Amino acid sequence: MTTAVVLLSGGMDSATAAAWAKAAGFRAVALSVDYGQRHRVELDAARAVADQLGIADHRVVTVDLRAIGGSALTAEIAVPKDRGGSASDIPVTYVPARNTVMLALLTGLAEVTGARDLVIGANVQDYSGYPDCRPEFLRAFAEVARLGTRVGAGGAHFAVHAPLLQLSKAGIVRLGAALGVDFSLTLSCYDPPAPFVHCGRCDACRLRRAGFVEAGVPDPTTYAV
Amino acid sequence: MTTAVVLLSGGMDSATAAAWAKAAGFRAVALSVDYGQRHRVELDAARAVADQLGIADHRVVTVDLRAIGGSALTAEIAVPKDRGGSASDIPVTYVPARNTVMLALLTGLAEVTGARDLVIGANVQDYSGYPDCRPEFLRAFAEVARLGTRVGAGGAHFAVHAPLLQLSKAGIVRLGAALGVDFSLTLSCYDPPAPFVHCGRCDACRLRRAGFVEAGVPDPTTYAV
Repeated sequence: MTTAVVLLSGGMDSATAAAWAKAAGFRAVALSVDYGQRHRVELDAARAVADQLGIADHRVVTVDLRAIGGSALTAEIAVPKDRGGSASDIPVTYVPARNTVMLALLTGLAEVTGARDLVIGANVQDYSGYPDCRPEFLRAFAEVARLGTRVGAGGAHFAVHAPLLQLSKAGIVRLGAALGVDFSLTLSCYDPPAPFVHCGRCDACRLRRAGFVEAGVPDPTTYAV
Repeated sequence: MTTAVVLLSGGMDSATAAAWAKAAGFRAVALSVDYGQRHRVELDAARAVADQLGIADHRVVTVDLRAIGGSALTAEIAVPKDRGGSASDIPVTYVPARNTVMLALLTGLAEVTGARDLVIGANVQDYSGYPDCRPEFLRAFAEVARLGTRVGAGGAHFAVHAPLLQLSKAGIVRLGAALGVDFSLTLSCYDPPAPFVHCGRCDACRLRRAGFVEAGVPDPTTYAV
């Protein structure tokens, strides 16, 4: 069985990406990154998702990005609420170089577990403002993984899989439901008022709710408003 | 004044690279990474080096790589001693994807500080066995930094400077001495028996000692043997 390493944040996208990896026949090893985010309860969600998907090897790496700062998710900048429409600007919730850092950690785990397949739930629609979700970024990173690792030096290539990259949020809901994801275990909210309660007002909550509505899939989420 | 972000480990290479950045006219912002290494005293060395070089902004990011493991520097694998000659194999002190992780963190710091110049003391001779010190890796990483960042999305390019890349250890000693590095503040040893005492037997100590001898520069290091 071929091993894939999967970034598992605890959100609905990464849960669906992990279910995709399992369905595609990979032995999945999950990596969650505790990066000093405000919404650390998402790590509990990641653990619950890993359990539900039967992923026995789930590792949590701690990296404290607060020394770098620059994001509403790690610094004392307010998470925006009730914004009209989708923003085309890069949102303040962007964490500097976050996916680069996370894929770097995932590459280390790939080396140690013998995986050549990296799976990330990046999505261009959800993260239209995040440069590190673009396909060309993911391709360039695969090259870095090849050139920067012991196995790559030995001739191995890496694939960065982003199976949700071009899907709408509704498409992700549909795919996840088809693959048996229990979305009640996932957490999207950037600023949850209580564990596993979604604020209903931040960008992530708005996208999540609209996705279920558009997909016509029952939404198991508890929203505060 | 243009800002450069510099990886500062506390070793002689990164100290020389930081001195190079200052001499080249950059305002240097230093980043040290506490990655659960055995030789954490090197963080004290990094602080001392930053002070000596007049680098006022020195940040320490903590990332616990022990959840990934796979290296003598972070896991319970013995650091090799008294090996004959230089190894052509990748040494057990290789940390999976270390430079990828560190450059990713440095990219985040570059975004926040407005730097477009990343400086790393990578060296092909010292690290002959480390794939993530190769020039092609560093070039590929610069492309990842461009594609994966907010400023890169806006058209900015990044440069990854590795001013020691092709130097011998003696060449690094000579350059560092010429640039005013106080090598007594630096620490190379992978397994120091006491703070700022070098074991004298690990690969890093052997290379360090031989470098001073070959350069004809007085060696201020305290070696246990």
